Amino acid sequence: MSISHRRRKSKGSAAERTLIHAFWSEGWAAVRVAGSGSTQFPSPDILVGNNKIKLALEVKITKDKKKYFPKQEIENLNFFAEKFGAEPYIAVKFAKEKFYFIKTIYLNKTTSSYVSSLELCKQKGCLFEGLISFFS
Amino acid sequence: MSISHRRRKSKGSAAERTLIHAFWSEGWAAVRVAGSGSTQFPSPDILVGNNKIKLALEVKITKDKKKYFPKQEIENLNFFAEKFGAEPYIAVKFAKEKFYFIKTIYLNKTTSSYVSSLELCKQKGCLFEGLISFFS
Repeated sequence: MSISHRRRKSKGSAAERTLIHAFWSEGWAAVRVAGSGSTQFPSPDILVGNNKIKLALEVKITKDKKKYFPKQEIENLNFFAEKFGAEPYIAVKFAKEKFYFIKTIYLNKTTSSYVSSLELCKQKGCLFEGLISFFS
Repeated sequence: MSISHRRRKSKGSAAERTLIHAFWSEGWAAVRVAGSGSTQFPSPDILVGNNKIKLALEVKITKDKKKYFPKQEIENLNFFAEKFGAEPYIAVKFAKEKFYFIKTIYLNKTTSSYVSSLELCKQKGCLFEGLISFFS
């Protein structure tokens, strides 16, 4: 693993932990999934739930204006969510912004990727507080 | 970590992976939880689900006739399951037996522990096939 890859991974893990704290503090339960992205079965980065809903989340942070997702990553997330009985969501943090939560069906699609921008997140997604209000 | 502790842990992980394969092969989704037992928040060993139900599972293998669980471990599992919206189960494998699945409310209680025996599992629990049939 290269140093830059390791640094990205560690930033990603810190972001996952931050979100897990946030969900617990709202009375939800949240876990990080072991070996996400490296096991033979599809799995999200984190799984959160309450008595009403379960969310399967991929967590991303970016310095760019857009975030691209390999097609397979989104399709795996959708597949996992369908089997588990959860809603597939991306939690994405753009530079100097809070986390936005957007359902995978609202991502834009190119030939090889899915894409989200801050504008799309503002239009079709919601902030943490909005998500919690909606599903509580 | 002592060698015997490490060996127990690795046997436990292998058992968890076996169960995860089994659930996926029945069309459920299943994940191992990262840092189970070592994070500040309660969490199960594995989380499995389909469109009807979610199960939060502690996975145990033992050579003894009975399996004792520290009170706190079971209470944490129950707490997690209540918050997440899942059913709290123990998956326990006694020597030369298959895995039995038993809901935590059916464990026997001593002053400091919860206990399960093979007899109790046969009486109040079920085998993998029974669990799948019941919740599919």
